[in-house]
Amino acid sequence: MHIDDRFERVLNRVDEFVIEIPSWGFANTGTRFGKFLQAGAAGTLEEKFADAAQVRALTGATPSMALHVLWDLPGGVDDAPKVKRLVTEYGVRAGSINPNLFQDQEYKFGSICNPDGNIRRKAIDHLLDSVEIAMALDSQDVSLWVSDGSNYPGAQSIRKRILWAEEAMQATHDALADGQRMLIEYKPFEPAFYFTDFADWGMAANLARVAGPKALVLVDTGHHYQSQNIEQIVAWLLHLRLLGGFHLNDRRYADDDLTIGSIDPYQVFRIFHEILSEPSSDVTRDVAYMIDQSHNIKGKMEAMVQTVVSAQELFAKALLVDRDRLAELQAEAKTVEAEECMREAFWSDVRPVLKTWRERRGLPKDPLKALRESGYVEKIERERRARNSSLSASYA
Amino acid sequence: MHIDDRFERVLNRVDEFVIEIPSWGFANTGTRFGKFLQAGAAGTLEEKFADAAQVRALTGATPSMALHVLWDLPGGVDDAPKVKRLVTEYGVRAGSINPNLFQDQEYKFGSICNPDGNIRRKAIDHLLDSVEIAMALDSQDVSLWVSDGSNYPGAQSIRKRILWAEEAMQATHDALADGQRMLIEYKPFEPAFYFTDFADWGMAANLARVAGPKALVLVDTGHHYQSQNIEQIVAWLLHLRLLGGFHLNDRRYADDDLTIGSIDPYQVFRIFHEILSEPSSDVTRDVAYMIDQSHNIKGKMEAMVQTVVSAQELFAKALLVDRDRLAELQAEAKTVEAEECMREAFWSDVRPVLKTWRERRGLPKDPLKALRESGYVEKIERERRARNSSLSASYA
Amino acid sequence: MHIDDRFERVLNRVDEFVIEIPSWGFANTGTRFGKFLQAGAAGTLEEKFADAAQVRALTGATPSMALHVLWDLPGGVDDAPKVKRLVTEYGVRAGSINPNLFQDQEYKFGSICNPDGNIRRKAIDHLLDSVEIAMALDSQDVSLWVSDGSNYPGAQSIRKRILWAEEAMQATHDALADGQRMLIEYKPFEPAFYFTDFADWGMAANLARVAGPKALVLVDTGHHYQSQNIEQIVAWLLHLRLLGGFHLNDRRYADDDLTIGSIDPYQVFRIFHEILSEPSSDVTRDVAYMIDQSHNIKGKMEAMVQTVVSAQELFAKALLVDRDRLAELQAEAKTVEAEECMREAFWSDVRPVLKTWRERRGLPKDPLKALRESGYVEKIERERRARNSSLSASYA
Amino acid sequence: MHIDDRFERVLNRVDEFVIEIPSWGFANTGTRFGKFLQAGAAGTLEEKFADAAQVRALTGATPSMALHVLWDLPGGVDDAPKVKRLVTEYGVRAGSINPNLFQDQEYKFGSICNPDGNIRRKAIDHLLDSVEIAMALDSQDVSLWVSDGSNYPGAQSIRKRILWAEEAMQATHDALADGQRMLIEYKPFEPAFYFTDFADWGMAANLARVAGPKALVLVDTGHHYQSQNIEQIVAWLLHLRLLGGFHLNDRRYADDDLTIGSIDPYQVFRIFHEILSEPSSDVTRDVAYMIDQSHNIKGKMEAMVQTVVSAQELFAKALLVDRDRLAELQAEAKTVEAEECMREAFWSDVRPVLKTWRERRGLPKDPLKALRESGYVEKIERERRARNSSLSASYA
Repeated sequence: MHIDDRFERVLNRVDEFVIEIPSWGFANTGTRFGKFLQAGAAGTLEEKFADAAQVRALTGATPSMALHVLWDLPGGVDDAPKVKRLVTEYGVRAGSINPNLFQDQEYKFGSICNPDGNIRRKAIDHLLDSVEIAMALDSQDVSLWVSDGSNYPGAQSIRKRILWAEEAMQATHDALADGQRMLIEYKPFEPAFYFTDFADWGMAANLARVAGPKALVLVDTGHHYQSQNIEQIVAWLLHLRLLGGFHLNDRRYADDDLTIGSIDPYQVFRIFHEILSEPSSDVTRDVAYMIDQSHNIKGKMEAMVQTVVSAQELFAKALLVDRDRLAELQAEAKTVEAEECMREAFWSDVRPVLKTWRERRGLPKDPLKALRESGYVEKIERERRARNSSLSASYA
Repeated sequence: MHIDDRFERVLNRVDEFVIEIPSWGFANTGTRFGKFLQAGAAGTLEEKFADAAQVRALTGATPSMALHVLWDLPGGVDDAPKVKRLVTEYGVRAGSINPNLFQDQEYKFGSICNPDGNIRRKAIDHLLDSVEIAMALDSQDVSLWVSDGSNYPGAQSIRKRILWAEEAMQATHDALADGQRMLIEYKPFEPAFYFTDFADWGMAANLARVAGPKALVLVDTGHHYQSQNIEQIVAWLLHLRLLGGFHLNDRRYADDDLTIGSIDPYQVFRIFHEILSEPSSDVTRDVAYMIDQSHNIKGKMEAMVQTVVSAQELFAKALLVDRDRLAELQAEAKTVEAEECMREAFWSDVRPVLKTWRERRGLPKDPLKALRESGYVEKIERERRARNSSLSASYA
Repeated sequence: MHIDDRFERVLNRVDEFVIEIPSWGFANTGTRFGKFLQAGAAGTLEEKFADAAQVRALTGATPSMALHVLWDLPGGVDDAPKVKRLVTEYGVRAGSINPNLFQDQEYKFGSICNPDGNIRRKAIDHLLDSVEIAMALDSQDVSLWVSDGSNYPGAQSIRKRILWAEEAMQATHDALADGQRMLIEYKPFEPAFYFTDFADWGMAANLARVAGPKALVLVDTGHHYQSQNIEQIVAWLLHLRLLGGFHLNDRRYADDDLTIGSIDPYQVFRIFHEILSEPSSDVTRDVAYMIDQSHNIKGKMEAMVQTVVSAQELFAKALLVDRDRLAELQAEAKTVEAEECMREAFWSDVRPVLKTWRERRGLPKDPLKALRESGYVEKIERERRARNSSLSASYA
Repeated sequence: MHIDDRFERVLNRVDEFVIEIPSWGFANTGTRFGKFLQAGAAGTLEEKFADAAQVRALTGATPSMALHVLWDLPGGVDDAPKVKRLVTEYGVRAGSINPNLFQDQEYKFGSICNPDGNIRRKAIDHLLDSVEIAMALDSQDVSLWVSDGSNYPGAQSIRKRILWAEEAMQATHDALADGQRMLIEYKPFEPAFYFTDFADWGMAANLARVAGPKALVLVDTGHHYQSQNIEQIVAWLLHLRLLGGFHLNDRRYADDDLTIGSIDPYQVFRIFHEILSEPSSDVTRDVAYMIDQSHNIKGKMEAMVQTVVSAQELFAKALLVDRDRLAELQAEAKTVEAEECMREAFWSDVRPVLKTWRERRGLPKDPLKALRESGYVEKIERERRARNSSLSASYA
């Protein structure tokens, strides 16, 4: 039967969609106005690994966890052995390594783009440390979010900062071993408000080119101007062989870090469709799907499991698109029919096929329900509450 | 001479422009990614009063300071006598009273719009306390920023929350004494991302009407959609007799809390022009000009003085507009001539006339230069550094 | 079975969703850069009625057609008898009556807000004519899009134009008979660029109030700032008893007039959910669902049928929401569960239930396919091609 | 005296700012809702040259006029001799040559990105014709606005269209003679709404690179996302040696084609400052400043003169910036002082110095006033009224 065949094909490709979850997704985070603290939030790296292992057990789709150098490896590469023990113990790989270029007081006027050469040097050293950590942990990707920028017209030289950014990207690239990659993220605003040095995909792509062949671009779905067509940018990055991966999340107005697909699920579907439309698997094989969300309201564990399930569903819908037929309709400019061909996939209910996929792999059919029934959240709340309730969440 | 007459008229009306500065503008603040701590930041209410007095001495335009209940009067109305002593000592009036409806852990799902009636009651009680504080301090205005909202579709009932918002506004209004006002602020996003309960001027105006005649709308210049015409909203609020005042600041993308006029000075000029175009002084006499900025990069004192001077310049330019001539040109639809009539004022250099105004009042001609020469910043940095350097600025 | 019950409930309420299609949706339209002419575009009012009848026959959901005074009744009320004949002949009711306040050369600086009192009078007369036409055609609604505005700061008095707008709204309201309504549309930009006089829902709602109880607000889904939460505005208008109806269409950047749900289907679903959440049927019974799209690329007939089917599907999904359960989850602030309760409905495939609904009513199961098989488009292309190919589509 | 020196330096560099005005700026244009016809609008190429000569005589800053192939040279290169005669007669050079890829009915689904190879070929041929015309007229620049795109997700293959765009850019580049350039424009929306093929500077820059060294990027100031920092893009294009020139205009919401600096003059100043900050004159010498505005409301002649004067003023202000001092302040991260250094220039009244510049060159001191006193507009209205009043301006 026609439908069955379609779903069978999907079943065989769901495994291709592997998601990396971030260690900071289990910790307390908030807005500039404060944090709503969660009793079960992870406070140690081991707790983060434990939570990640639980997400993996429930979803079967998250083999690795992104690490943040400053928060997870404050001792730098010396902390690598400890991380490796946790990897072995919890069965969750160390994922992308994320340097921190925004938290140090010296970075007030920028890190790698600071007008002070000593601070630039310090920032580059941190990037090189991050590369070393990635090597020590067998992590493929160093994921670079450079939060530099300036708040006021005239306050900084846009032009000189481009040169400094290039120097830092090149220095980082030079330190990469074979098989390592650096992923360059862009963001149009925040925490700097007048301009951010890595503001859009054009800047990130040029910096990747200047850095060298191991440098690629990282697309954070929340880091775009309102109304910008993200799937077109994805198509361009694929075309230029520069798409390194994603930070998945959703937003209404700014970089809201909400659950992927919670505001505009059709957009996520279209992004996945664009990737699946790329004919060369060389280009898409290593696209890294990473979650970058900051849950201040939703329960951390609940949100993470929901995120993985939602992303899988949207990916499965994109797998359903009959791309041969679509290509024909596009060639003939049959607008309505081509659109309906896309929507046929989007409106199909893929939840049953994902249930089947889970059953075949011995996973719980409904991961969110399984999380609730597992008592895991209650358990970590009991264990961690005392510590978490003594934290300060204040703004002032 | 023609020019002289115009400037003379301006000179006589600069005094009309009185600005309120916020106590939190002297304290350390930041973004969700962290704070860049300043050695001289004020940590106590007395320090804030001292800083405000210095701004007043330099600019002659800032007789009052807005107070934040939770940060400045943590003891509630019991702290009023202490505040009154500081008022007397430093010669700076207590300005608008700002309740805090966002910081308590119980406000995770809203304060006055929380689905839990007990929490709503608690939030309303805080508003009533704020009214009482305002009375005790002879403050005219309670300034309400309700940060409530929700992050996800379906998570909360938009409809029910409107009813709860109305109840809280009415309860607050009922508590106001004669001569007191409540100013209702609106904001389209942040800290809630899917919707904020007080999202736009239409909602704020309806809530003010339901509350009663002492309720007015507060326009924060950074709380608008991109490209929204703020001066038109100001014209509407004047027309409806609902304009209570402003939180002045500037932004490029979101609610960036930058120095007013630093990104789009022409817009500020147009807003002032709209107010000065209102024929009834009953409507404009009590419009409160309040600064609401959050300086993470600029020096606190420097930024505040610069802000006052910038705002004065833009107000002086608006005073220069030949509104009789403009009305004629508008009536005849002489588009280019009317536009040039506005721009004639905007492009005029009002800095000399403001220097004259300052000289006549015995103020320093160049307040920013006077601040630098005063040694005040160095002094407070010496005095406050030890305390401030022990603060935590971290995000994680 | 649980699912069956849910769908059965939907089946019984699909009839509630009745859509009005616009006469101009069958005519050639375009962008400011030109029109792509369609051979089968309707050029006469009779052709528009014929096309509308075909859409009705295929979908069973479009009993009426909105009329544009200038284009469809150039002779004013004298053309009413002719329209009534067409109504009888084609079995499609005359829907909302749409005055035209933008096309006359005299409206260069505005129509009802023009600084010239004679032009304002003329524009009001046109509104009164439109009311008369509506009466003559037994149309309930006069649908007012006031395209007035100004392109440059200072060129026009925002303040005076508010007064003129109020006068015109009152005059129109005074002319309405019992049972008639006037629906006031708002739009934040275009064709005027610096401000439009009816820019947002707050302005429209205030004008409706000043006009009188028969004045309501018309929400065009494409007439909002980027990222604005439209369902919240809908909730407010319902709360204020001011929601008159919709102009449905979709957009990415501006007022793109694309097929409803083609860019952001989840938003449309949320809007319908908000309406269905209103407890008083008095408030929602007369909400008018009108299409306002301008198809330059898609085939006119194809686009209209697709639009109706898409809108029905999204309405059916909204019908599926378990609102009792949702209310409980909202009350307990169970964010993820409440969100999933909404999404359970959105992700359900309602196409089978709509097929059943169509079968029960003797309609074609797949209206788009039926349109293709009917040969109707080929027929009108043959009949109208000669005329349409002689049209000018040029920009310059 | 200090001020005098600064202004004297400006005086010597005002000549560097040479502006190209567009032939279509003198013709009747409008919005998709219609045109407000002007009696004096130019209807023939000779009239456009006459108007351009008048603007040149009044401002002394506009030696050339951009030509639109389809509207100005409908006969293609065969019309070149006629154009050359007009150039000689009116003393206005032929400026950039603008192909038209949006008006032909065959371009419904794209021109150079159309899925139909024959249509792509036809579009490329038009580009090659435009190159030939440019050669024949000794025009340096072919200015490419490719309006291609698609309105609906799935309707077209984003990926394939990138390849087609590259082919067309290469073919055009191959045809360029030494000294010729092609300028590639980008635009994020309109007339296509879901995506435009040349959507942002990143895409344009990549296409320019693929095309070859004579291909550069054209920045239309109205073709950006809301809130995008245009001066940063300009800095990047200068850095990459890819800045070809500008289409100057202003906007509030979309591509409104308003007078440059009429909405946000500070932004224009910052763009000019960025160009003047580039140390290599090789990079900036050939930056083309072209006006691209569409005046539906302002008088055509009046608007053009006003535009040139406004642009000159903003350029003169940018010339005033003390860039040596600014560089020092930026190096020391003195945010407020650096900002004030920029603003010192912006707030200086340069109108007197421009009056002096005009006097020294024998130009009228006040070009707008001179235009009014010249009677030129009345003259062309008399001459052209009969023809223009018979034009159709309708939308339907």
